Amino acid sequence: MTQLAQQQCEACRADAPKVSDAELAELMTQIPDWTPQARDGVLQLEREFTFKNFKQAWAFADKVAELAESEFHHPAILLEWGKVTVTWWTHAINGLHRNDFIMAARTDTLLAN
Amino acid sequence: MTQLAQQQCEACRADAPKVSDAELAELMTQIPDWTPQARDGVLQLEREFTFKNFKQAWAFADKVAELAESEFHHPAILLEWGKVTVTWWTHAINGLHRNDFIMAARTDTLLAN
Repeated sequence: MTQLAQQQCEACRADAPKVSDAELAELMTQIPDWTPQARDGVLQLEREFTFKNFKQAWAFADKVAELAESEFHHPAILLEWGKVTVTWWTHAINGLHRNDFIMAARTDTLLAN
Repeated sequence: MTQLAQQQCEACRADAPKVSDAELAELMTQIPDWTPQARDGVLQLEREFTFKNFKQAWAFADKVAELAESEFHHPAILLEWGKVTVTWWTHAINGLHRNDFIMAARTDTLLAN
């Protein structure tokens, strides 16, 4: 488990800082399987997880939903046959907060469980 | 419950017929809350369902997943805070089969349950 995955989200307000370019570069090294991408001008973290069938993908999507609800920080979870795409960003700041990197790292750990 | 919602999917092969324009027009009258839209040239049926919070959206997404697995016909289910977007199409024919309209109508009935 990465150091990031062991951290908790902190409460995030609308005036919380977005990660800087330097922080982004450093944090991405801790979640190498995720891709930062801008959608409608909002920077997000996305990863596609593949599975052997729908049931396995569904079970994983449920685990991500459970994690999201436990931290009250909610991603977009796209469930399809054999595939789950998870997208993290912080709605309150229309971009990436350190919380999103923590959640991405914690999402990765759900694969192993 | 609409007539469509009471029907079962039939097995769908790669040479199964897509719905014709006339059938599409007739079937859409039975699922008025759905929108037919082309994505990457593939015609799909989409509906956004809204909820009061994440938990309610999650519970609905789970019901849709259960329905999908029971018929072994799988949509894209996008779960976000307070919102679930369901998209039906038939991968085997890269478009809309009568099955997709049945599944859309059956998805609607899950709201009431």
